Amino acid sequence: MAEKPVDLRSDTVTKPTPGMWRAITEAELGDDVYGEDPSVNALEAEVAALFGHEAALFTPTGSMANQIALQLVTPRATELLCDADAHVVTYEIGAAAALGGISTRTWPAVGADLDPDAVAAMIRPEGYHAVPTRAIAVEQTHNRRGGGVIPFATLRQLRRVAGDAGVALHCDGARIWNAYVADGVPFAEYGALFDTLSVCLSKGLGAPAGSLVIGSAERIAEGRVIRKRLGGGMRQAGILAAAGRYAVAHHVERLADDHARAARLAEALAPFGIVAGAVRTNIVPLDLSKAALDAGRLGKAAQADGVLISVLGPRTARLVTHLDVDDAGIDRAIEVLTRVLAAA
Amino acid sequence: MAEKPVDLRSDTVTKPTPGMWRAITEAELGDDVYGEDPSVNALEAEVAALFGHEAALFTPTGSMANQIALQLVTPRATELLCDADAHVVTYEIGAAAALGGISTRTWPAVGADLDPDAVAAMIRPEGYHAVPTRAIAVEQTHNRRGGGVIPFATLRQLRRVAGDAGVALHCDGARIWNAYVADGVPFAEYGALFDTLSVCLSKGLGAPAGSLVIGSAERIAEGRVIRKRLGGGMRQAGILAAAGRYAVAHHVERLADDHARAARLAEALAPFGIVAGAVRTNIVPLDLSKAALDAGRLGKAAQADGVLISVLGPRTARLVTHLDVDDAGIDRAIEVLTRVLAAA
Amino acid sequence: MAEKPVDLRSDTVTKPTPGMWRAITEAELGDDVYGEDPSVNALEAEVAALFGHEAALFTPTGSMANQIALQLVTPRATELLCDADAHVVTYEIGAAAALGGISTRTWPAVGADLDPDAVAAMIRPEGYHAVPTRAIAVEQTHNRRGGGVIPFATLRQLRRVAGDAGVALHCDGARIWNAYVADGVPFAEYGALFDTLSVCLSKGLGAPAGSLVIGSAERIAEGRVIRKRLGGGMRQAGILAAAGRYAVAHHVERLADDHARAARLAEALAPFGIVAGAVRTNIVPLDLSKAALDAGRLGKAAQADGVLISVLGPRTARLVTHLDVDDAGIDRAIEVLTRVLAAA
Amino acid sequence: MAEKPVDLRSDTVTKPTPGMWRAITEAELGDDVYGEDPSVNALEAEVAALFGHEAALFTPTGSMANQIALQLVTPRATELLCDADAHVVTYEIGAAAALGGISTRTWPAVGADLDPDAVAAMIRPEGYHAVPTRAIAVEQTHNRRGGGVIPFATLRQLRRVAGDAGVALHCDGARIWNAYVADGVPFAEYGALFDTLSVCLSKGLGAPAGSLVIGSAERIAEGRVIRKRLGGGMRQAGILAAAGRYAVAHHVERLADDHARAARLAEALAPFGIVAGAVRTNIVPLDLSKAALDAGRLGKAAQADGVLISVLGPRTARLVTHLDVDDAGIDRAIEVLTRVLAAA
Repeated sequence: MAEKPVDLRSDTVTKPTPGMWRAITEAELGDDVYGEDPSVNALEAEVAALFGHEAALFTPTGSMANQIALQLVTPRATELLCDADAHVVTYEIGAAAALGGISTRTWPAVGADLDPDAVAAMIRPEGYHAVPTRAIAVEQTHNRRGGGVIPFATLRQLRRVAGDAGVALHCDGARIWNAYVADGVPFAEYGALFDTLSVCLSKGLGAPAGSLVIGSAERIAEGRVIRKRLGGGMRQAGILAAAGRYAVAHHVERLADDHARAARLAEALAPFGIVAGAVRTNIVPLDLSKAALDAGRLGKAAQADGVLISVLGPRTARLVTHLDVDDAGIDRAIEVLTRVLAAA
Repeated sequence: MAEKPVDLRSDTVTKPTPGMWRAITEAELGDDVYGEDPSVNALEAEVAALFGHEAALFTPTGSMANQIALQLVTPRATELLCDADAHVVTYEIGAAAALGGISTRTWPAVGADLDPDAVAAMIRPEGYHAVPTRAIAVEQTHNRRGGGVIPFATLRQLRRVAGDAGVALHCDGARIWNAYVADGVPFAEYGALFDTLSVCLSKGLGAPAGSLVIGSAERIAEGRVIRKRLGGGMRQAGILAAAGRYAVAHHVERLADDHARAARLAEALAPFGIVAGAVRTNIVPLDLSKAALDAGRLGKAAQADGVLISVLGPRTARLVTHLDVDDAGIDRAIEVLTRVLAAA
Repeated sequence: MAEKPVDLRSDTVTKPTPGMWRAITEAELGDDVYGEDPSVNALEAEVAALFGHEAALFTPTGSMANQIALQLVTPRATELLCDADAHVVTYEIGAAAALGGISTRTWPAVGADLDPDAVAAMIRPEGYHAVPTRAIAVEQTHNRRGGGVIPFATLRQLRRVAGDAGVALHCDGARIWNAYVADGVPFAEYGALFDTLSVCLSKGLGAPAGSLVIGSAERIAEGRVIRKRLGGGMRQAGILAAAGRYAVAHHVERLADDHARAARLAEALAPFGIVAGAVRTNIVPLDLSKAALDAGRLGKAAQADGVLISVLGPRTARLVTHLDVDDAGIDRAIEVLTRVLAAA
Repeated sequence: MAEKPVDLRSDTVTKPTPGMWRAITEAELGDDVYGEDPSVNALEAEVAALFGHEAALFTPTGSMANQIALQLVTPRATELLCDADAHVVTYEIGAAAALGGISTRTWPAVGADLDPDAVAAMIRPEGYHAVPTRAIAVEQTHNRRGGGVIPFATLRQLRRVAGDAGVALHCDGARIWNAYVADGVPFAEYGALFDTLSVCLSKGLGAPAGSLVIGSAERIAEGRVIRKRLGGGMRQAGILAAAGRYAVAHHVERLADDHARAARLAEALAPFGIVAGAVRTNIVPLDLSKAALDAGRLGKAAQADGVLISVLGPRTARLVTHLDVDDAGIDRAIEVLTRVLAAA
């Protein structure tokens, strides 16, 4: 009988734990379009408080949370600056421009090695001739750049840059939970730096679906209208929010396990010279440009032996640890991957 | 101790039944962004089959299902025709224009009394000078027009109009389940008339959230990308889809009870001369323009006695029956409303 | 040798008169992107003053003038109400929705027979659930509705409707010059009614190209940025503005000749029962639904004899008088058209 | 009496020469919305032929020409790559995103030092998860980067990169005339590399207004509709096109004089260490970061003595030579600027 595969493609593949199921079935529900879902209201209040902001808004996905935030801080026909590999200009299918009319310019894809001065040099002031820069977005941790953690000192510098220029600062914090576990910077300190943040419940935290956008009461009220326009105004959303509340309460600290497992994976693959950079969180980025086999072939060979990895490009791949991969799974992944690589 | 109010504001306020809860907790889940959620896949296949179409796509809300369909049939900078009171140009906060770049012209708000010839006269051919009409949308049943059911013969005529002009036909079928129960026209016959349809699981059917857009395999594949761009690509969406499957299997035929209860309400209110038109489904539209009290005051007085109604304008209101209002609730609503009206 | 045809297709086909050529070649020019073109600045000041507004902005076309005005009064994702046959939702190729994200609902195509109460009933207040109405547009004179003139009393009523609801009022005044000549209402009285107006220099007035959008200084400053974004910020635009200044100074009162010629055309065609409504200005609308020949055949036959008309639909056509059609031209058109119609 | 200032702000400030005025007044005109303006038609045919393309389209401005081209090659919700200082993402006020829904990512501002391999690495293939790259834009010569000329060999390499990836290549050739004069690469060779080009008549060539977008007959036909939607469909546009025809025929080769004058300016300013890079065409970029006075003060001091320069940032400025600045003007500019700089 086929064993369940070890799924290292993404931390989005997790299923609810028994405790989370209990939270779901015991949830109080209501019609959230009328603002009457107690579970949604509680989740929004709790997450806003966690980040020291006035309000938060539940959304079906992280993409919607980001896009609402971007529309809030970057009015149509103004400019957003971000990393060339940022989720918001890569994996959201052109939404910022197509839905929000937001013009984007990007700094080179550096992930965690962000240079606030280089960002500062890109800002264009309000004016008749050039499109004015109105917001800067960063991603913590940085997905395409191997789960890297931007140092808090760098973010503080960037906050000064943004403040001096009068532009807003957004944090795509889908995996900010991982940054917290890696660096220990409290969520409220992150909250104090950013005008808006998005956080995701269905990646490392393991909820079935849902994200939140966080900000001032005024912005979030406007965000509620944007959410409805985007088609994100669900009715008894508490069924998802209840899972999210459980996840925030019980699944943050345990991300340390995912990080340790990712480190173990990285260590085991180190001899093959394919681990791209230091592994700080739950993502192990692979660069196979000097390897004997390419990403597609590694992916196929591993899959044949019950290990799923994420192939990002001809020579790049990614392993992600999460709630549904335990130590035995890591052992098996190491066994399979090292065998495939050694045989190549 | 305060009794639970009788909530006649909307059929969206319902909560899962015990049977539906069982379906949710027993659901098989997966990551739907990877197309791997068995419950979502089953729901999409079942609903597509029900309407005789190739494919369907699960969405968090009815608004998103409609907007995806509209973007599929009405490319940016082309024209959609619809009723001036249609949900798609009223309650979706400008999404068709703001997100899809779709130009709209509207025929007078007639709801079920649709005149296909009048629609035909509005169609503009492809050409350099005028914006070309590319799609027509109808709403079955019609929300703002009292849950009216457009006669199937009228829709067939409209299909001919659309076909002759080479424009697509979309059905906002959020409450098409009610039309089926009222008129008995099979879903597949509806499916045969329309290029795209949206159907909702969280109104009369009583699921917590979710809708589907239905169409050809090619359109739905493109719709999947649009859904991701709008931020509707949830992960373990099966938790909602499972409730939806249960609703489609068990809650369609029972809409007859809601219709009977709405008819009973209408009959009781008839002496006051405020019921606006024949009540065919689960919506009782009220026109208080000749009544002694306005909609706001009726709403407040009823609420004080534990009956919630939907106030739509200074002199218009709406009562909606659903899964969570039983015969006793209707008795109580009749008692309260007739007392308030009689005293006015 | 072939005579020059009598071109009754549109009042846009005119060429500069000798006096206008003189004005063009004597024009002082500068770079209007820097605000330094004296001819443009003078034209903008003169037209603003004529309508009693603070400011005006020169644009390459009437469509751009309208779209700038609409973007000024109807922010993205809010609603504009207008006639179903209005130029802004017909001949501007979906620009309001596609470029401005403006949602439109339309009242039935009534042209000059506008009913302010019917418009009032369509207005939707600001709110979370429905897209809020933010502006109403009217067209004076109404192009597709035969150059009809909306009575000033009607417009005054509409102003009250708009004011009560707190929505803006825009006038597509491409042919407002003709309304002035027909009814004698001073431009400043029009100016007092509308938040924004567009006026065109290249229709009846006979300039080669150019329109203006008129409004408050604040709106026009914002409009200048929108114009640049749309690609309408020309450099030495004074070459066109000079023609426009001449046209405003010398070609308004003479529109009475065009009107008289249109009336003469209408009178001559009256026996054939094809003139659709009273002819008040320079447009003679033809309805051939009961005629022996359709619009296409009438157009072809007339063209063969050197008379060009505008075919709008299978059974609708239009004759337009202007600066380049004199009495002899009208004689010839009458001769040709009556001959063709009599022979049909 | 005040002498006319020497205006080095931009090559857009020029006024028609006597020969150009003659061409304007002798122009045959017609209604270009009907495709009947002989001067426009001739200009479009001549410029298309010059670049070896099937068709061209006259537009009021270079911004509109660029935006039409971008909309042609980069459908809504797909991606364009360009230089972070490109005109299309800087000086067109967010039009690509706001009007075309085009997502942009940018490579670092390198101007003429374009690296095709770095561009290649940014391209993202068609796919469900990431927004697909559909076009690359370059600017020849590069405005904000000092009128630099991208070597033709580099462009040929970029063509291969684009071809391999199946993405389109657009050239913002507003000043391609200057590149031709600097490098001698024939226009047809440029034409062969690019899917679409824009060229401007009102910069170095000295026409009052107007640009063209160049491409295949099919693309240009679609571009004609986009132009109308943007509000660029003028009537007797031949009045501008005639000037443009004259400019293309008589003002290209003479750009060599502007280049020589720019070189003379650069040489004179060299001792002050403020000329930013080699001057190849008609733009002298100034970097005052190590100078004793900043750009604003230099600008003001020069203006006081009748020399106008363009201040781009706190420490950056630009001098541009053109048709309306002769050798005496350059002498005067050198005298004033060196005096101000020496005194600082």
